[in-house]
Order: sequence, then C-alpha cells, then structure tokens
Amino acid sequence: MSAPVVADDGLTLPQPYLLFLGDTTEAGFAKTALGLVDWAGDRCVGELAVDGCTVTTGLPLMSPAEARAAGARSLVIGVANQGGVIGDRWIAPLVEAMEAGLDLISGLHQRLGSVPALADAARRTGRRLIDIRTPPSAIPIATGRKRGGKRLLTVGTDCALGKKYTALALHRAFVARGADADFRATGQTGIMIAGGGIPMDAVVSDFEAGAAEMLSPDAAPGHWDVIEGQGSIYHPAYAAVSLGLLHGSQPDVFVVCHDPGRTMVLGLSGYALPSVEDVIDLTIRLGGRTNPAIRCGGVSFNTGRYAEDEAEALMAAERDRLGLPVADPIRGGAAFDALVANCLA
Amino acid sequence: MSAPVVADDGLTLPQPYLLFLGDTTEAGFAKTALGLVDWAGDRCVGELAVDGCTVTTGLPLMSPAEARAAGARSLVIGVANQGGVIGDRWIAPLVEAMEAGLDLISGLHQRLGSVPALADAARRTGRRLIDIRTPPSAIPIATGRKRGGKRLLTVGTDCALGKKYTALALHRAFVARGADADFRATGQTGIMIAGGGIPMDAVVSDFEAGAAEMLSPDAAPGHWDVIEGQGSIYHPAYAAVSLGLLHGSQPDVFVVCHDPGRTMVLGLSGYALPSVEDVIDLTIRLGGRTNPAIRCGGVSFNTGRYAEDEAEALMAAERDRLGLPVADPIRGGAAFDALVANCLA
Repeated sequence: MSAPVVADDGLTLPQPYLLFLGDTTEAGFAKTALGLVDWAGDRCVGELAVDGCTVTTGLPLMSPAEARAAGARSLVIGVANQGGVIGDRWIAPLVEAMEAGLDLISGLHQRLGSVPALADAARRTGRRLIDIRTPPSAIPIATGRKRGGKRLLTVGTDCALGKKYTALALHRAFVARGADADFRATGQTGIMIAGGGIPMDAVVSDFEAGAAEMLSPDAAPGHWDVIEGQGSIYHPAYAAVSLGLLHGSQPDVFVVCHDPGRTMVLGLSGYALPSVEDVIDLTIRLGGRTNPAIRCGGVSFNTGRYAEDEAEALMAAERDRLGLPVADPIRGGAAFDALVANCLA
Repeated sequence: MSAPVVADDGLTLPQPYLLFLGDTTEAGFAKTALGLVDWAGDRCVGELAVDGCTVTTGLPLMSPAEARAAGARSLVIGVANQGGVIGDRWIAPLVEAMEAGLDLISGLHQRLGSVPALADAARRTGRRLIDIRTPPSAIPIATGRKRGGKRLLTVGTDCALGKKYTALALHRAFVARGADADFRATGQTGIMIAGGGIPMDAVVSDFEAGAAEMLSPDAAPGHWDVIEGQGSIYHPAYAAVSLGLLHGSQPDVFVVCHDPGRTMVLGLSGYALPSVEDVIDLTIRLGGRTNPAIRCGGVSFNTGRYAEDEAEALMAAERDRLGLPVADPIRGGAAFDALVANCLA
C-alpha cells in the first residue's frame, strides 16, 4: 500500500493470521483485530479468545492447531488494553499457538519476550516473537522545515473511533480518483495492514515531531500522504502523541473523526468528550504553527451503532451546523464523495 | 531538596564535579553547566573545554588530573546540543578524565556506553558511566484524576530561557516564606541539582502525561510542588513534551518564562517566538483540560543581557501591559516578591 518507512526494516510479517481477542469485553479495545478483518480480511483465517471475551470479528473461532491446518502462519494479538500489557490469562493460549507452529505478532507496549513463559516457548519451539511497536533507531529532532507534497491527517475527539479507518478509506478514494497517494501508518494495526510505518506512541517524546517528519518525507507537489492520526489533543493521557504528530505532519488538510454516540472519553472517568468544533478550532490553532495553511476538510462520523436513517439524519444535522462535509466512510455514498472532494479541493 | 522520584533509584552522584563544556559556542546549549554553578556551585571545582568553545561558567579551567587533585570525583557533561549526542571531539578528553580517576555523568540522549572508546576506557580504568536520562521503568498511563496538594509549573516561550532557574528560585522563595514545598526536576540539570526527578523528554510519548502524574503525587492540601517546565507548547520539535507535562502536572498556577531579547526560536530557522500573552492564553486553554482552575501567576523575564535600568524598564512595561507580576528571579527584589506573592495567593 505504501513504501515501508519502517518499524522493522525489511520485515515481512508471516501471513495469513489467526486473530487473538484475549478476554476483551469492549469493541474499542479490539480495534487491531477489527481493522485487520476490514482491510486485510483475505489474510485472516479465524479468531481465538479466552473465557469471558464478548467481542468477535465475525471470523470462525479456531484453535491454534485448526488455524495452522487452515494455513495460518502467525497469531496476531488483536487487542490493546490500557497500558498495552500482556494479560496473565493470555499466556496459555499464546504458548499453545507457538506449539501449533504459529509465530506471535504483537503491537503492545510490553514486549513478548519480557514474559518468561513466552520467551521459553519461543526457544523451545523455534517460533518467532515479533514486536512491531519498535520505532526506527535513528529519529532526528524535528526541524519544522516545510516539506514538498500534500498531507492529510485524521484527528479525533477521542481514541478508538475511526481515525485509522478514515485514513485508509480516504487513501483508497484518493487513489480511485487518480491521485498519487500513500497511506502512512502510525499504529500497530495500520503497520500490520500497510507493511510499514512508525508506531508513534512508542516514540520518545523529544523525538515525536521528528518521527512524524520522517514518516511523511518530501514528495512531489501533487503527491498526497494520508496519515493515520493517534489519540486526541484533548485526551488527558495521549495528547502529547497527538500534538507531536500534528506538528511534524504539517497537514494541509485534517479530517475530524467522531462517534456521535460517545459523550465521555473512553476508559477515563470524569472527562467529557470535546465538541467537534472545539477540535477543529484547536487543531487549526496548534497545527498552524508548522503549516499556516492548515484547514479542516470535513468530519468522519462513526455511526456503526445507528440505523441507516438515524445515521443519515445525524450527519445531515451536523453538516448543516458546521457547514462542512460529514460522512461515515463505512457507509460511503454521496456524503463520503463530498468529503473526499473537499479534501482534494 | 526534594524526595527522589526517581531516575535511578538509590543513585548517589559522585561529587564534587568537573564541568565539561565541549566545543559549545552558544550559552543556551550550556545550561546544564551554568545551572550547576548557580545551584550547586559548592560542589563544582572547575571546568574543561575543547578548542573552539566560547562559553565559560566562570570557574577555573582545569585538566582532569588537576580537577582530581582538587577533589573532583566525576566529570559532568554540562552541554546539550540538538539531538543530545556525544561529539566526536569530546571523546579524547572524556577518556582522559576516566584515566585521571573521574566517573562520567551525562544527561544526553545518547548513552555514554554506546561510544566504544568510552565503554573500553570505563572497563580499563574501572570508572563508571552514569546516564541520568533514564526514566523509571514502570510509568502508568495517565488517569487524569485530580490529585491533592497545589502545583506550580514553569512554562516558556522557548527552550533554554529560564524555566528550571525560575522553578528553583520560586521553590526557594516558597520555603523561605514557610510553605511546605518540593522542587520537582524534569531535566538533566535539575535532576543533578535535586538528586531525583524524571527526565521528561526521554519518556515514551504514550506515557508522557503519566510520568508527570507520577512526578508530583498526591500531597496534603497546603503542600506545593514546584515543577520544572520543559520546551514550549509552541515549539515545533518539543511541544509534545510540554503538553504531556502540562496535562499530567495539573498546575494550579503557571509562570511564563521569557527572554525579551529573543525573537526567533533557538536553533530553528523561520520560527518566530510566540508572544507571552499567546503562551498564557494557550496554556490556560490546554491546561484547563485537567485543571479547570489553572491561572497565570506572572512572568519570569530573563534579562541577563540588559543593564539594570533597561531590565527594570522592560519589566515595568510588560507588567503594565499584561496586568501581571513580571520579575527576573536572578535580580530578585520587590518585583520577584510580588511574583511569589501572586503565585501563593
């Protein structure tokens, strides 16, 4: 999809995948698995979970041995909890996967090899432990120098509400309209889908903007980088990631991603979601520091929990209120075409 | 000064110090050495530089052997260039220092042991390579939960213009007025002075706000943490550090540090300094996310390059313009007393 930038130079991930869902009970924390099914579904054979998991990708439930027999070459940890740690109850099925002949792929903060039982099983079975959350080793400090080419960044009112999905859909639409465009991945799922990118939340904070500059290098005037956003500039835990990515990306256009049914920040108590117009205003103010021409291309609504007529009414009301295109990239249609056209305008 | 929080649990730095200035030609990059002379001058015996260095701390120039004879137990790398790397021309004098019996202490990003000549010399001489820029190993994700106690954070219009110095001076003044207060160090020099703290720019960006929460834990209602700021929310390279620190610190009061003679961002071309009022406004907007009661306590002017009457006139004009106390903590006096009083009000 895009040229690897890259977390692991020269790494080719072993595919197809068996998707591991752990004991997740909230779909927002299973975005890795759900994203792989949406954008690399032909390379996923099934899913595996432990007791208590209430989330599913819709793929058939398989044991590691069944997945191996169906052609899987690796198990991907498809969930991300707060803190990105390997759950105690995940270890037995992960060891079983290696014994069945699957490599392990993880985008969590905690390294696979830091769990003694996994390190032992890898040595015993000869399987690989692949942590894709490793940033490049030599990231320069940002210079703020304006680079050639056009850039679009997806931003959000919160985590886990469609920034990666929106960037992938916009990239696909840009290419379909004949644009020269690359998708630039910034998180574990995006990197698994794209085959390259930089895990921005794993970068040391002094180098955050420099990593974003490295991720979308100088390009020809008509070229577009469509950059996957991370976190939210209003998020009490992750705003540092979002601001470094915004400054270093120097976006010409940003699209605000929002879930109209969410009122509170995911996983934090007491924090109300910012409004879409607050995010637009603050993104222009902060992003204008490195690209004074920054503008909002429109809004991406995650309307998965609404019926079609409800979703249409919500988006129409928001469109009238903001005077900007509002679309759900999963629903597509004329609304999404209008969003794409306004981004490219 | 403050309870170690801590970069290296239980580490006691070998003192006194010989201060190493490398080949620095800009005083802004020698802030570690200059800060140690100001706040731990009784534990610094002299300075060492290589050809071309135009900065001095005012301490006598000494060879490593002379410093050792004068009682020094370690050489501190007192300079920080862009990127925090060990200069090629620094290596010979650093090896000479170990041969003379001094340990090496560094706050740079690049580890001392990553330079083969230094690692070899350390093994050969039995000297220690001490990197103080190592964050704690288990930093939690920020929760945004409001903590007990009061907090003051110094912020800036740029890097290297007095945020650490201002925090140290305010802490000293708070204690002198009978307040229960701790200085919380966030950078290499502050940690060397305080004996503890967290090197905020070395923290992985996902954990930046969490590290700031860890740095100033729950405290009694009347207790003050005076927190050393980092970077600037307007800095194209370092704003991620500044925003994570701001969100996690939840300051009740912030003081804006500014150099009235500086018009452009240090070390970057084409970036004008933001105005003090822009920094006040944006800090309240961003910091209000985790502490809606945040307020500006006043402004700290770095007037080292001005004569006293010029400095007084500059500060008086700014005081009238902003309607806030403006003081240079190095000059002290009634203006600084007014700043301290307004912060504690």
